[in-house]
Amino acid sequence: MLLSWFGEVFGRESDDHAILADGIKEDPERISRAYRDLLSGGSTDPLTLLKPVKQLAEGESHGLVQVGDIPFVSMCAHHFLPFFGTATVAYHPRSVIIGIGKIPRMVDCLARRFQLQETLTELIVDTLFRGADAEGAWARLSAQHLCMSHRGPTAVTAVTTTSHGLGVLAGRTAP
Amino acid sequence: MLLSWFGEVFGRESDDHAILADGIKEDPERISRAYRDLLSGGSTDPLTLLKPVKQLAEGESHGLVQVGDIPFVSMCAHHFLPFFGTATVAYHPRSVIIGIGKIPRMVDCLARRFQLQETLTELIVDTLFRGADAEGAWARLSAQHLCMSHRGPTAVTAVTTTSHGLGVLAGRTAP
Amino acid sequence: MLLSWFGEVFGRESDDHAILADGIKEDPERISRAYRDLLSGGSTDPLTLLKPVKQLAEGESHGLVQVGDIPFVSMCAHHFLPFFGTATVAYHPRSVIIGIGKIPRMVDCLARRFQLQETLTELIVDTLFRGADAEGAWARLSAQHLCMSHRGPTAVTAVTTTSHGLGVLAGRTAP
Amino acid sequence: MLLSWFGEVFGRESDDHAILADGIKEDPERISRAYRDLLSGGSTDPLTLLKPVKQLAEGESHGLVQVGDIPFVSMCAHHFLPFFGTATVAYHPRSVIIGIGKIPRMVDCLARRFQLQETLTELIVDTLFRGADAEGAWARLSAQHLCMSHRGPTAVTAVTTTSHGLGVLAGRTAP
Amino acid sequence: MLLSWFGEVFGRESDDHAILADGIKEDPERISRAYRDLLSGGSTDPLTLLKPVKQLAEGESHGLVQVGDIPFVSMCAHHFLPFFGTATVAYHPRSVIIGIGKIPRMVDCLARRFQLQETLTELIVDTLFRGADAEGAWARLSAQHLCMSHRGPTAVTAVTTTSHGLGVLAGRTAP
Amino acid sequence: MLLSWFGEVFGRESDDHAILADGIKEDPERISRAYRDLLSGGSTDPLTLLKPVKQLAEGESHGLVQVGDIPFVSMCAHHFLPFFGTATVAYHPRSVIIGIGKIPRMVDCLARRFQLQETLTELIVDTLFRGADAEGAWARLSAQHLCMSHRGPTAVTAVTTTSHGLGVLAGRTAP
Amino acid sequence: MLLSWFGEVFGRESDDHAILADGIKEDPERISRAYRDLLSGGSTDPLTLLKPVKQLAEGESHGLVQVGDIPFVSMCAHHFLPFFGTATVAYHPRSVIIGIGKIPRMVDCLARRFQLQETLTELIVDTLFRGADAEGAWARLSAQHLCMSHRGPTAVTAVTTTSHGLGVLAGRTAP
Amino acid sequence: MLLSWFGEVFGRESDDHAILADGIKEDPERISRAYRDLLSGGSTDPLTLLKPVKQLAEGESHGLVQVGDIPFVSMCAHHFLPFFGTATVAYHPRSVIIGIGKIPRMVDCLARRFQLQETLTELIVDTLFRGADAEGAWARLSAQHLCMSHRGPTAVTAVTTTSHGLGVLAGRTAP
Amino acid sequence: MLLSWFGEVFGRESDDHAILADGIKEDPERISRAYRDLLSGGSTDPLTLLKPVKQLAEGESHGLVQVGDIPFVSMCAHHFLPFFGTATVAYHPRSVIIGIGKIPRMVDCLARRFQLQETLTELIVDTLFRGADAEGAWARLSAQHLCMSHRGPTAVTAVTTTSHGLGVLAGRTAP
Amino acid sequence: MLLSWFGEVFGRESDDHAILADGIKEDPERISRAYRDLLSGGSTDPLTLLKPVKQLAEGESHGLVQVGDIPFVSMCAHHFLPFFGTATVAYHPRSVIIGIGKIPRMVDCLARRFQLQETLTELIVDTLFRGADAEGAWARLSAQHLCMSHRGPTAVTAVTTTSHGLGVLAGRTAP
Repeated sequence: MLLSWFGEVFGRESDDHAILADGIKEDPERISRAYRDLLSGGSTDPLTLLKPVKQLAEGESHGLVQVGDIPFVSMCAHHFLPFFGTATVAYHPRSVIIGIGKIPRMVDCLARRFQLQETLTELIVDTLFRGADAEGAWARLSAQHLCMSHRGPTAVTAVTTTSHGLGVLAGRTAP
Repeated sequence: MLLSWFGEVFGRESDDHAILADGIKEDPERISRAYRDLLSGGSTDPLTLLKPVKQLAEGESHGLVQVGDIPFVSMCAHHFLPFFGTATVAYHPRSVIIGIGKIPRMVDCLARRFQLQETLTELIVDTLFRGADAEGAWARLSAQHLCMSHRGPTAVTAVTTTSHGLGVLAGRTAP
Repeated sequence: MLLSWFGEVFGRESDDHAILADGIKEDPERISRAYRDLLSGGSTDPLTLLKPVKQLAEGESHGLVQVGDIPFVSMCAHHFLPFFGTATVAYHPRSVIIGIGKIPRMVDCLARRFQLQETLTELIVDTLFRGADAEGAWARLSAQHLCMSHRGPTAVTAVTTTSHGLGVLAGRTAP
Repeated sequence: MLLSWFGEVFGRESDDHAILADGIKEDPERISRAYRDLLSGGSTDPLTLLKPVKQLAEGESHGLVQVGDIPFVSMCAHHFLPFFGTATVAYHPRSVIIGIGKIPRMVDCLARRFQLQETLTELIVDTLFRGADAEGAWARLSAQHLCMSHRGPTAVTAVTTTSHGLGVLAGRTAP
Repeated sequence: MLLSWFGEVFGRESDDHAILADGIKEDPERISRAYRDLLSGGSTDPLTLLKPVKQLAEGESHGLVQVGDIPFVSMCAHHFLPFFGTATVAYHPRSVIIGIGKIPRMVDCLARRFQLQETLTELIVDTLFRGADAEGAWARLSAQHLCMSHRGPTAVTAVTTTSHGLGVLAGRTAP
Repeated sequence: MLLSWFGEVFGRESDDHAILADGIKEDPERISRAYRDLLSGGSTDPLTLLKPVKQLAEGESHGLVQVGDIPFVSMCAHHFLPFFGTATVAYHPRSVIIGIGKIPRMVDCLARRFQLQETLTELIVDTLFRGADAEGAWARLSAQHLCMSHRGPTAVTAVTTTSHGLGVLAGRTAP
Repeated sequence: MLLSWFGEVFGRESDDHAILADGIKEDPERISRAYRDLLSGGSTDPLTLLKPVKQLAEGESHGLVQVGDIPFVSMCAHHFLPFFGTATVAYHPRSVIIGIGKIPRMVDCLARRFQLQETLTELIVDTLFRGADAEGAWARLSAQHLCMSHRGPTAVTAVTTTSHGLGVLAGRTAP
Repeated sequence: MLLSWFGEVFGRESDDHAILADGIKEDPERISRAYRDLLSGGSTDPLTLLKPVKQLAEGESHGLVQVGDIPFVSMCAHHFLPFFGTATVAYHPRSVIIGIGKIPRMVDCLARRFQLQETLTELIVDTLFRGADAEGAWARLSAQHLCMSHRGPTAVTAVTTTSHGLGVLAGRTAP
Repeated sequence: MLLSWFGEVFGRESDDHAILADGIKEDPERISRAYRDLLSGGSTDPLTLLKPVKQLAEGESHGLVQVGDIPFVSMCAHHFLPFFGTATVAYHPRSVIIGIGKIPRMVDCLARRFQLQETLTELIVDTLFRGADAEGAWARLSAQHLCMSHRGPTAVTAVTTTSHGLGVLAGRTAP
Repeated sequence: MLLSWFGEVFGRESDDHAILADGIKEDPERISRAYRDLLSGGSTDPLTLLKPVKQLAEGESHGLVQVGDIPFVSMCAHHFLPFFGTATVAYHPRSVIIGIGKIPRMVDCLARRFQLQETLTELIVDTLFRGADAEGAWARLSAQHLCMSHRGPTAVTAVTTTSHGLGVLAGRTAP
């Protein structure tokens, strides 16, 4: 069915991919599986992923906890094309330490949907701020958008960076 | 119609992208336009792009001509997902010098279709070898495949490199 | 006609490019096409390029949105020679999120004219500030000027950087 | 007169550069001076630049002499737009050592004309081979072409590399 | 049960990890799940992963296909401690092209077992050579071994590299 | 006994590591020795390691003393899997200078236990602050966690950074 | 005459350069020409180089204008030996924009004299501040001094950096 | 005599260096000469090295003067083993400019003694502050200590950084 | 006793290290311990370190095994001063695979003696070739020598590289 | 006297360096001392520097010995201006190992004279080949020439590389 959509979009040009037809068999299930992977985030509530691993005692202080270079892929809600890059996510603990391995999972869960990078950034910070009962939460995402890098003017090197902070990290400008 | 395909693929999960629905309006024409851009190569015959700019005199020798770091984007014929990276393309002139600006255009034309990277590499070399009446032609493509980098095992850093040569550049192993 | 201008400028030296005359045919239309590309920005009003993709709700906060490493080329209004480099452009949303892919298009549109880098920087910031109804807008351009790098004293490595900010980003000094 | 050519090429669009007209005065002489600089190579015979500084005695052996990272600018003979980059030039002395400072001058002299990069490379090697009475001569030029990098498909990062060798350096593939 | 093993190994020192006991609860299932992940390769036959995606026609030539920077993790068969790094895997097609995304899966499957790096390298090459009916197969693995880097003499920066080739790639020394 | 634990965890799959059985003999003592190394920190009181090498005179001022790029390995208290990376540790002397070689020893001693990275960071700073009678103490640890990098979503490049400060270095954000 | 000075300085050692005498002829004019080039700045008044290219309207704001990586060479007034490196020069416009190409010329003019780096830095800033009627001017010079790098203790890697600011850029510490 | 000390320290092991005895003759004078070089600083008063080269006029302002990447070697007063690295030294002139070439000499003089890095840093700043009658003086030393990098836990990559400031540069944190 | 040797070497200058005497107490045992660590290799026979971990079956082929970036420290037999750097060591297995962790131990054992770098390289290769019954063995050492880098002419950046091969790796020139 | 030479060369312009006259006193002895340092090589016979430290036994094999990144400064025999850079020098021992610390001394001795880089390279190789009774000797010098980098066309980045080999290293092309 995706193929017939391409047929509609391209008219007779859709036959051009026939240049590969001799050696390759189309497999709708393989295509569906790939797209289900890229969009699998929606089936999980990201808040349920963040689990405390240690309760902080009264007056116990902890510094900043940050996970950087987290790869992510998302799907641009405007062009139905992927965008991808890395996220840096940080929080200042208040009452609990959460399992740091859960932070990439939460990013992954929120990213594998139809998103805008601006909204995705806001959702990550908001989820972490509330889910970890944090004093502050912050994120910065840098991504390449296929809908930007390979279309129109020569923007192939352009990188889009969005950042957001809440609580004591609201004014943070860099990791 | 693409949306209804996602609906079929995801079942009720397809509603999850509704998380963006309040602020964003769907625009089928914008989506079609983006995909037409990524798959626009099929409407041109790449051989017609290569135009000689200088006839070489009898016995006139010229060294290797190479264009490197040519960005390209293509669409994986198996998963209908983009792959993209850079190409290095070289030829040894025999009878003519072709306009070097035509080499990135030829790569772009062959890439913006449903392709395998292996086949795309072969097509680029073959087109240049014949189109420039060259003594030798060679190409190497390095690309990231979204169908590989963000699925299953942690292959997010993996880069696929394919190379091919014809004529006096058949045995070339590196630029 | 451009050729006769070179003739006037160089006097009899203009014949020196005849060293290529045997193998190359002059093609006024090809030259005109190239210059029309480099100066094509003037036919578009950059303000019309910036389109909102999401209305922000009352009290909805978003962090900084920035697109970096945007390549651009422009034409020096003093020497009629190209200058080119990369732009970093940022804004703080107030009422809307604009399509990020529009930012490189707006830069491209303003750059492909006869410009000074200082003025181009100011125009980009002003267009984004007004066009996106932003709380703040900022840009930094780094470029190589052919009229500087290959003339007179040995300034071949020199890079010109201009920056400007409006609104809450008026005092920003670096991305 | 250059301005009237732009007028012809762009029709009424040529007025668009009027956006700078308030603060900037046109100066035909300044423009001519800039172009004369970029095309000043033709007034010199490059062979006259290469002067021996030491006669080699019978049986006196010397290794390879190479000057790398020589910046150059040239003017594309097809689009009348600049291309520029760096040259690496080498020779194997036979009877004399030439002043190494003369090698960048010879490159500069041959480059500041209307050229193809392929032809420029050949001329540099041929001039050095004959002018230094060398056992071998070799050159490799890497350049960015404004007629390629900022037009049509997104080839902004593309680098064109040409190389050529004569005598005992005919088969050389890299510096 | 793992804990009691540590108890045996360390004697009374095993109580020292009690320094974390106040805030952290032990969870045998979480530990088992982590180790099952690291050793999950054994449940799959890697040969079944390699599937042809295109039959090559008689006389159809293809160059080298290589996937580099594939991350992997394995478990040292001697110290029961992890080693990890990246693999570069290449093959020369004979009769078929295999799905390139299957190569990282095959590496992952063979690595997530008790292995020696030397044996793992040999198994990857052998599996690819036979599974793809290739003219040649080759692999190079670079890894950090926890049993080496943080024990005894100061070898914390040491990297172990193993390589192997079969068929026409038997003599290959570098990617 | 560790082997029987793996047997329990994997059931019959535990036999899969038999693929190495022909050439390799199991050696429980070698395994115990390796783990004792990784967890050897608990047998030392880190405070006893910090020895003054110079008493500061009244009014004698000294600037910041910092040791960076200290490699460490620790064992994740949640998954019983190693995490490792580098530490940067600094202090502002008050009454004494301590032997700088003792700082890596103290980090090593605190790391070779079952730890959380957040807690390890806090312990390092606290030990140094008290043990050196410092005006301020600070540490930043960057580490890769095997329980995060090679499991679930593709977080293989993710780096976890924790930092903490006490005294006059409480507000420090970077080395 | 320079030669006889070397004769005086070295006494009979001055004959040692005779080791080159067979193949090389001394040429006092060539030496004078080289030194005249290195010291040619004194014949120009740097203030005359800075020419406005645009008058700023009342209330028209412009951000910082900076030219970095400007190569320069100067002659140490103490040892009569060259020092050289790069300059970064910036100004905040008040009433006019000056031609950016004039900034490297002004640096070149002030550097090609007998100078101290400290004084040269001050002169550049002062000239730009007054010559451009700027709100602020700033410069930073990094240089290698032959009188330092190859004499006495092993300071061959040492780099001398001087910076200075006037007006609103008086407190600036980095570009 | 040094040899007999090694004999005492190692007992009979001291004979092990006999493995080199066949081809190498011991030379006490060569060893003494090497150590005298490393410890030659003590014979000079560093204050006498700093000589003014220019008197500043009343109200004449100069910016910061800094010499970076100055290599130094010193001898650890605790282990009698070398430590070495680079120093960055800066001052704000008040009444005079000192010869910049004297700064590496002063560092060299103070370093070639038995020192602690902390004390060496303080001495450099104090000497410069007083010797140059400066408004402020500052230094940062980064070094590798052989007594730390190749002993005990794996600290081979560790770098020790000390910094200190006086006068207007007392609060400086980075060059 | 070492101190009295310094006293002899420096005469009265040996008192100069008294500048540290107020805060620091001399500790002959600490010094002996440090030197014993640096020269501890002689008490072990390196051949006994190399233990096979797997017997290779008849006809079983394995590629090259290499451990790179192995840090080492040694003591120059001529000046009694340390030299240190990294080793890359490789072998081609014949009948057995040896434990790779033993290679850095063997390097460490051979280096911690009085050595020449040339002899140390030869000993490493010879030990590995015989101890592993290898088809070939090879090593390359790159080191900084304190007796070279901080003495006489400005050779502070100089790196000494030695390499050696035996068996099938006798002609190897690079890793 | 040097000053009066500058007076002759520049005519009345020689007064321009008077801009520094107020604060700086001329010191002919300081200038002579600096030049004597740069040209001090001639007073030593480089062959006397190379001393054997170990006799090789019959059949004792040693690999290549190389010292890289040796800084050097020399004086161009044509323009009496400095050139400087780094040397890589290698030899294959035959009967003796020479002290590696002597190689930078020999380079320094040969460089601190009036030289051509081509001749200097040849002298270094010849001296080492004969002085060490080597099977082969080789050198490569990379340098910046002040007479080239800051004069005429914009060759400021140009690097001159010369190489030469004798004996078994005659055909060597790279380190």
